[in-house]
Amino acid sequence: MYVVILAGGSGTRFWPLSRKKTPKQLMSIFGGRSMLQRTVERVIPLKPKRLLVITNEFQARETERQLEPYREELRYDVIAEPVGRNTAPAIGLAASIIARYDPAGVMAVLPADHYITDEEGFRTALTAGREPALNGYLVTMGVVPTRPETGYGYIEADKALRGAGPYPVRRFVEKPPMEKALEFLNAGNFYWNSGMFIWQAGVILDGILAHMPELARTLALLTFTSDIWELGDLKSQIDAMYREIEGQSIDYGVMEKADNVVVVPAAFGWSDVGSWGAIPDVLTGDGAGNVLLDARHDVTVDSGNCLIYGGGRAVALVGVRDTIVVATDDALLVCAKDYSQDVKKVVEELERRGLTEYL
Amino acid sequence: MYVVILAGGSGTRFWPLSRKKTPKQLMSIFGGRSMLQRTVERVIPLKPKRLLVITNEFQARETERQLEPYREELRYDVIAEPVGRNTAPAIGLAASIIARYDPAGVMAVLPADHYITDEEGFRTALTAGREPALNGYLVTMGVVPTRPETGYGYIEADKALRGAGPYPVRRFVEKPPMEKALEFLNAGNFYWNSGMFIWQAGVILDGILAHMPELARTLALLTFTSDIWELGDLKSQIDAMYREIEGQSIDYGVMEKADNVVVVPAAFGWSDVGSWGAIPDVLTGDGAGNVLLDARHDVTVDSGNCLIYGGGRAVALVGVRDTIVVATDDALLVCAKDYSQDVKKVVEELERRGLTEYL
Repeated sequence: MYVVILAGGSGTRFWPLSRKKTPKQLMSIFGGRSMLQRTVERVIPLKPKRLLVITNEFQARETERQLEPYREELRYDVIAEPVGRNTAPAIGLAASIIARYDPAGVMAVLPADHYITDEEGFRTALTAGREPALNGYLVTMGVVPTRPETGYGYIEADKALRGAGPYPVRRFVEKPPMEKALEFLNAGNFYWNSGMFIWQAGVILDGILAHMPELARTLALLTFTSDIWELGDLKSQIDAMYREIEGQSIDYGVMEKADNVVVVPAAFGWSDVGSWGAIPDVLTGDGAGNVLLDARHDVTVDSGNCLIYGGGRAVALVGVRDTIVVATDDALLVCAKDYSQDVKKVVEELERRGLTEYL
Repeated sequence: MYVVILAGGSGTRFWPLSRKKTPKQLMSIFGGRSMLQRTVERVIPLKPKRLLVITNEFQARETERQLEPYREELRYDVIAEPVGRNTAPAIGLAASIIARYDPAGVMAVLPADHYITDEEGFRTALTAGREPALNGYLVTMGVVPTRPETGYGYIEADKALRGAGPYPVRRFVEKPPMEKALEFLNAGNFYWNSGMFIWQAGVILDGILAHMPELARTLALLTFTSDIWELGDLKSQIDAMYREIEGQSIDYGVMEKADNVVVVPAAFGWSDVGSWGAIPDVLTGDGAGNVLLDARHDVTVDSGNCLIYGGGRAVALVGVRDTIVVATDDALLVCAKDYSQDVKKVVEELERRGLTEYL
């Protein structure tokens, strides 16, 4: 299996810890390894033939640095997009590279910034997706929902035909209102759209050819040197390609239109950790529900349900609840939990004022 | 007039900004000059003959450093107590030094860590206290109360005799419950005990002799060199004296017992700034009541009534109210405004755990 990790996200909702050069996936938000590193370590037991990490030019250097510890165990390449164009071009590019070498090769596409609690369950689901991929399906991983989450997209499966899946996909649904989310949760045939996919490189390229002909034409122009993995030689071609193409997600561009899409149900404790407010979902707090990240020492008095990133500082909470506090060397965020989606407004405002040193 | 500034307080309720070596009076909590420096600058227009600053050994060096800018304008001396013994020994020591040189000299005693909005009003009140001091009274400055504050002690004046004061003092009252505080506010003859005093050096020494004979005996043992202001020579005598004496406040030791005490009413916008929660009383916030101290840049979204000390950082507030956040290089405090008195519990806990680097 080939593994493609999509690692170019900007993660403005994790400001001030996430910055342009160190977005969520490169942060060691949970202490120790970054989310990218955790994503890499999660697939190492599957012994991937090759790992491709797609990032952008701001983050390429830090990405390389973070992959360095795995050089012995993995053959990996880092590709820096000159500009973000959503997932379809990145996936198309990765598929083109793999297909040139091994068209029937199965590739797993994984976002670098998701949190997974049951790593063994994750690998089992990935392995389960391999068979339908070999049979020519575009396989999407559907996470079994555990709550009426309105922050995720859903996949509706057609469960009429088989037992444990994979199931044919009826449709993709955008983030629903609460009422719909409850309906989906109770229906039993809806899954969270995890953004994780498995398919043969050649099969997704066929999908792109059928549904995104512009992108397919651009990809077809790539010329490789005799050693296909000399990806440095592709740099100028990739830059030219990204200047031409439009941004599009693989979901909208291919998955929602193709008729060979199946969903593999997965139940491995998953979160896309979209904002500071999602951290307590994936980390256990102390007895009072306080999650203290990177606190050298901590003292709490009459406090609960807070999330504090101390940046190596001693942290004291006194009489405070439901608050997120993040302190870095140059910035400080204080945010009510319910407002954690609005942290991106802070980043927008800083950008508007030209305070680029904080971005 | 001589001025004695009491600057040895520890100010644990301003942790983590206040530390053993830089307590409240030495912090530049309001940006720029420290409270000690503001206290010094407040009396400079009165052209004091001499300034004595009483501090402790932890803080002596920083105190000297902060006084340095005033060397041209003022003759000042710094005395470091080897150990804190409350106000009576410090005041007795200062009075002994001044009295040896000028027994009839009037000395004003001022805490270094009080906040005063109307500096001209402050100097007017101080000058008003000079006359009764010259007439042999122990003069205490009583701040006209503006609210039923339960955090201050009160002074009850006998207003039967004269018009605008000074008034004889009937009694000193400890911090009252709310009901009493309301009663005092409405009575019209109660004042906040500011801890600011004016008297002749010889007169307070007489008071000490009458009501604190032990302290008086110790003070009487001090021997001076021919140049009375060579205070460095007193060092070993002061250390010996402090080993012997017991701690006592001048209020309890003398003022509550003496019969020559008068109060000068003063209305100059005063706060002892006893905790983080008192800062918004003395500083005006933005339109939403947010006070941002030492924030290099700030962005606020749906937030109000917060107090943030950013330590030179960019600070962002999102959906947060009535919260105090203080970030320093090594520590972070998040505290509900109503709990600001409990910050000292954090310091106690750190001390208990032996985490002296944060004290």
